Amino acid sequence: MTPASGIWRDVERIRAGAPLVHNITNYVVMNTSANALLALGASPVMAHAIEEVGDMAGLASALVINIGTLSEPWIASMSAAVAAAKRRGIPVVLDPVGAGATPFRTETALRLISEGPPAILRGNASEIRALHSTEGATKGVDSRHASEDALEAARALSRSRGCVVCVSGAVDFVVDGDKTIRVMNGHPMMPRVTGLGCTASALVGAFAAVNPSPFRATAHAMAVMGIAGEMAADGAAGPGTLQVRFLDALYSLTEKDIAGRLRLAEE
Amino acid sequence: MTPASGIWRDVERIRAGAPLVHNITNYVVMNTSANALLALGASPVMAHAIEEVGDMAGLASALVINIGTLSEPWIASMSAAVAAAKRRGIPVVLDPVGAGATPFRTETALRLISEGPPAILRGNASEIRALHSTEGATKGVDSRHASEDALEAARALSRSRGCVVCVSGAVDFVVDGDKTIRVMNGHPMMPRVTGLGCTASALVGAFAAVNPSPFRATAHAMAVMGIAGEMAADGAAGPGTLQVRFLDALYSLTEKDIAGRLRLAEE
Amino acid sequence: MTPASGIWRDVERIRAGAPLVHNITNYVVMNTSANALLALGASPVMAHAIEEVGDMAGLASALVINIGTLSEPWIASMSAAVAAAKRRGIPVVLDPVGAGATPFRTETALRLISEGPPAILRGNASEIRALHSTEGATKGVDSRHASEDALEAARALSRSRGCVVCVSGAVDFVVDGDKTIRVMNGHPMMPRVTGLGCTASALVGAFAAVNPSPFRATAHAMAVMGIAGEMAADGAAGPGTLQVRFLDALYSLTEKDIAGRLRLAEE
Repeated sequence: MTPASGIWRDVERIRAGAPLVHNITNYVVMNTSANALLALGASPVMAHAIEEVGDMAGLASALVINIGTLSEPWIASMSAAVAAAKRRGIPVVLDPVGAGATPFRTETALRLISEGPPAILRGNASEIRALHSTEGATKGVDSRHASEDALEAARALSRSRGCVVCVSGAVDFVVDGDKTIRVMNGHPMMPRVTGLGCTASALVGAFAAVNPSPFRATAHAMAVMGIAGEMAADGAAGPGTLQVRFLDALYSLTEKDIAGRLRLAEE
Repeated sequence: MTPASGIWRDVERIRAGAPLVHNITNYVVMNTSANALLALGASPVMAHAIEEVGDMAGLASALVINIGTLSEPWIASMSAAVAAAKRRGIPVVLDPVGAGATPFRTETALRLISEGPPAILRGNASEIRALHSTEGATKGVDSRHASEDALEAARALSRSRGCVVCVSGAVDFVVDGDKTIRVMNGHPMMPRVTGLGCTASALVGAFAAVNPSPFRATAHAMAVMGIAGEMAADGAAGPGTLQVRFLDALYSLTEKDIAGRLRLAEE
Repeated sequence: MTPASGIWRDVERIRAGAPLVHNITNYVVMNTSANALLALGASPVMAHAIEEVGDMAGLASALVINIGTLSEPWIASMSAAVAAAKRRGIPVVLDPVGAGATPFRTETALRLISEGPPAILRGNASEIRALHSTEGATKGVDSRHASEDALEAARALSRSRGCVVCVSGAVDFVVDGDKTIRVMNGHPMMPRVTGLGCTASALVGAFAAVNPSPFRATAHAMAVMGIAGEMAADGAAGPGTLQVRFLDALYSLTEKDIAGRLRLAEE
């Protein structure tokens, strides 16, 4: 099976099974994450009340936790949902939005990881570096290779926590211990749309719901994000149009789109 | 007056009077519900603080309660707003999002209904069935006619609670005791946009603000939803484009659009 | 330097520096405000937890407070963030959404102003009049000149509070004591998109981050809002399309667009 056909098989499974993905995510991206999951073919649900997160995680095929707009009651619900997901054995995706920016976010991300590592940790380079450096790692003072630093941080975190770590950026790194997949799809206009990183985490949840390998699921989701972003950016006048066309691309994505555009390297 | 001209009269009243619709709704759809109300010609306001929901319901011409992303403080505010709306005699629309999925949602919906039935209860088939079955109804074990079950549940709820019940789906049922209107407008791509059901409830609020019959108001709103959805789907490449064009369609809707597309049956 | 070249210089500074704008804003507009800031070239962050608002304001180049969906915990965070911003000397923008509609909103807006006046207060005519009239001003009973009333209220508030006051509407007034700039850009379809007023406040934050004059920064932001709105409305079938094209226009805005469309008068 080629990488493209492996991705396509997951897309078909999502479209056929419409797996329920439970999101406890930030206010900014709730709408756009739900729309991306629906456009791809999954079934999103957003629920954050401590009274029901256990029940909802019990119905879902994956749980996505995103700390983008955090507060104490939400953290308690995230912990409870992660515990319920662990009991049921469904994959958990953690997006540590803003880790490193404030101690509150860094500490919350570390606390959620230590309560039971997620199957997949997905962040940008500064978030992943921040989570790694709090583990006692030395951060190069004048590092000129931020993405290489982040890759090292991802490898260290993957080994110490026993989870898949994804660092997204111009090139996405997906790391599982010693294995790495680089996904080179995407478009420079994508960071000008708010929350596409959060959307990536939501889609990782959908792929993890249908693919038993968190490593493959993450790489497949990042490839689909990048490919849909490229399709959306073709001829887009700006990020407003890109956002609309991105949903259309997820909806209309074909095996040929994937095969024709995929740029992925495994090492 | 034909059904189409009755709908058009309501649209004209909304556009002329811009009735204030107070929404206590979920985080996912706040933006899109507000945009749909504005595109149609109504004035949306979102307010959920216990300190002001009574004042806000006092200014509004309709109140829409949606339990899609629930938590305890919001439930208290919903109760207070419903009480204020009842005192003033403005119509209340309740959207029991996720009733049946978790006990928390089912119980909250039932509690809000029992505190004073809404003028209109609008949900999908599984939500309406869940609210009915908790009343002691037997649910067919291997029912192959989900929508017929839901219609029976809607009729029973309408009679027991004394309110209009709307079950939305490929065909929308609007039930008031023994009377039923079926609205057959809409497009299969609509469920791939998050929150269009919630948007329907918001629009029901706008129609109920200008039409003294909750039964007619609900049918008119559902017809306008479906017709605007059809107009939006014509030529749409996917749900991203559909969502954008749906707002344009609400804004530009004419009597001719309604008359040409309306598919409605009353029994 | 012409007004247009002054605006353009600010746009270039925002695009080059990507200033971090910390928003504590309402649920309805978080996504669209973040997208507008990103499309313009600024870096948005949304954070509202009392545990981190001080840290986040410490990283930011401007703070935007918007009371559109208020509750007590958010008010405490707004106060803490304003205090942190004052200590660091970064500009604060306050958008008193709904002041005058409920006592809770009016009192919250006045409390935030009295804890340390913002650099810029931006609202619509009824909000600015409401904040002024609570100061003991007499409101004309049968005023037929609402916008002139609002201009007088803005002048009085600007003098008494020592801040820039912006009243947005078909014509935007930007007042700093005795000085007034009128911005006549914009399009009548803009109020049919939810939250464009809130987006204006967010963009004022971005301009205040790069221009040391809050008076000029506000006028420049309002001009860019209006011009992008005009560009977006050209050929738009409705508010759905306008919203998408508005982001594209912010992204692609050129000096020539500004020079060709700017309608601004200073007195």
